[in-house]
Amino acid sequence: MNDIFLRACRGEKTLPVPVWFMRQAGRYLPQYQEIRGKADFLTMCKTPELAAEVTLQPVDLLGVDAAILFSDILIPLEAMGAELAFKEGRGPVITPPVRSWDEFSALHSIDPIKDVPFVLDTIKLLRKELSGKVPLIGFAGAPFTLATYLIEGGTTKSFVNIKKMLFSQPDLFRAVMNLITDVTISYLSAQIDAGAQAIQLFDTWGGILTRQDFRDGALVYARRIFNSLREKGVPMIYFVYDGGHLLDFVRLSGADVIALDWRTDIEKALVPLGKDAVVQGNLDPCLLFLPEERLRERIAEILRQGLLARAHIFNLGHGVLPEIPPEKVKLAIDIIHELSS
Amino acid sequence: MNDIFLRACRGEKTLPVPVWFMRQAGRYLPQYQEIRGKADFLTMCKTPELAAEVTLQPVDLLGVDAAILFSDILIPLEAMGAELAFKEGRGPVITPPVRSWDEFSALHSIDPIKDVPFVLDTIKLLRKELSGKVPLIGFAGAPFTLATYLIEGGTTKSFVNIKKMLFSQPDLFRAVMNLITDVTISYLSAQIDAGAQAIQLFDTWGGILTRQDFRDGALVYARRIFNSLREKGVPMIYFVYDGGHLLDFVRLSGADVIALDWRTDIEKALVPLGKDAVVQGNLDPCLLFLPEERLRERIAEILRQGLLARAHIFNLGHGVLPEIPPEKVKLAIDIIHELSS
Repeated sequence: MNDIFLRACRGEKTLPVPVWFMRQAGRYLPQYQEIRGKADFLTMCKTPELAAEVTLQPVDLLGVDAAILFSDILIPLEAMGAELAFKEGRGPVITPPVRSWDEFSALHSIDPIKDVPFVLDTIKLLRKELSGKVPLIGFAGAPFTLATYLIEGGTTKSFVNIKKMLFSQPDLFRAVMNLITDVTISYLSAQIDAGAQAIQLFDTWGGILTRQDFRDGALVYARRIFNSLREKGVPMIYFVYDGGHLLDFVRLSGADVIALDWRTDIEKALVPLGKDAVVQGNLDPCLLFLPEERLRERIAEILRQGLLARAHIFNLGHGVLPEIPPEKVKLAIDIIHELSS
Repeated sequence: MNDIFLRACRGEKTLPVPVWFMRQAGRYLPQYQEIRGKADFLTMCKTPELAAEVTLQPVDLLGVDAAILFSDILIPLEAMGAELAFKEGRGPVITPPVRSWDEFSALHSIDPIKDVPFVLDTIKLLRKELSGKVPLIGFAGAPFTLATYLIEGGTTKSFVNIKKMLFSQPDLFRAVMNLITDVTISYLSAQIDAGAQAIQLFDTWGGILTRQDFRDGALVYARRIFNSLREKGVPMIYFVYDGGHLLDFVRLSGADVIALDWRTDIEKALVPLGKDAVVQGNLDPCLLFLPEERLRERIAEILRQGLLARAHIFNLGHGVLPEIPPEKVKLAIDIIHELSS
């Protein structure tokens, strides 16, 4: 088995450096588009055969060192009683947005085995089909990020509704966050029990907060998740997108691996994280548009900085974009393996 | 004349600390809405009497220590030949987006006196009506930010088109940036000649770049603007939104004042900026939803950190949102003045 990803998660410098890409299973791949042509996005998430098939595509096509479950961070919100739809060109929409105690009272905790069996079945199927080729990563959205979708009712530019609740209805905010945190613990726990060999917590929106508000309104909940899951014994990765200003707090999260977006150079991030941090990242996905020679230089620079950490898992600083040519994704992975061998 | 804003810009610690808020003239004010009900947004920008009237509203209603020209950063793009429209719920739309040499060749330099006379007339009118009450700030978008709108054709979440051009058509990117830089220099120069007593360069999207790409693809152009305008002798403010990872480069921009969004604490920002920096900022606009007592604590903390800098101008970390109650904006300004007197 190719276990360089798991070894790096545990703090070992590996040869080569392991690589996987966020959203490596996705719209940029024609093989994904083929399946997506037959089923809508939520159906794909909820059909283990389809979800497993697209999860495996990048493993076979690109040679990544880990597979990540194909799913969506909003799946648990739907299981909690929120009405979720994906509208073309608008992204996810949650109706009604949760902005009052009344709307909150319609939400409930989940039993993953009963409420999201398709996720657990996908994981079991994947472990069988991967048969030890590469490890499988499970994931969930961090509470603050899920609460953002729940309270805003979808994507937003101003985050005014969640911040308004945080600042003017702190009791309701805490109730929402605590429920999501409980759900996320049982959701990730079930993923690990089903076979996920590592987990990543995606805090896509934690980075919109001031330091103080991130610490008090987001980190404490993420910490509770990592603390609860530690006994499960699988590596845990925390990704706070656009969280460069929060890294000294992120260090305290209890995660084993800190994932970085492209804004913060690894070398700079190691100041607040400490040199003994295991880091994951952090090529700007758009750098995949570079011609090969310049792409190689940028990858080499990230690998150089990654050597300064205790261990390094190569990744993008955000998900692969639909516009990126798949051959460039493959080329990047080959270069990463070549340069770090 | 209330000159505490200009004195702080020049590095003097003032009593009280001067305050103005980005987008202090805007949709949150019923008095603004009244005018907006009679004219669309672009018409307001282009009618000196209307633009001057809304510019003055917050000076009279809120007691801010500086007025800022009511306009839009995209006005010069329209003058350069881009077709600009503001669509309800979609924000600005530029047709066609500039993504090829052909589309670029349709753009041209501007003569502010001939091409944007309404901006200069608004400034002249404002200086007369302000009659020295508070100073008037002019502004422009930074070249990278304007290029983003031009190349994306509007707002974007992924910034894939501008980054694709930056990475795969660097010659075209440089041509676009150089033209916008030339236009911005003559645009701001004309604003100063018309009477603007300080200028702010808004780099709303510079913060999406890696450090290396910001330095080579954005900062060099902003620097050229500040270097060209220095001889005009008015204070110059540089605001890179979400630019916490870039502050050591921002320090080299040549601006007199560095404006901070709410993510980076002033105390932390002074490490890369240096203790002799003059800073502006940085209350999260959503903190205006706090109850008075807690708002007071947060303002006090920012004032405390501002004292660590050479001088401090209080501002929000981003523009006032339409959802903020105007009485809370007034309250914040009163608290800032009270606590720093």
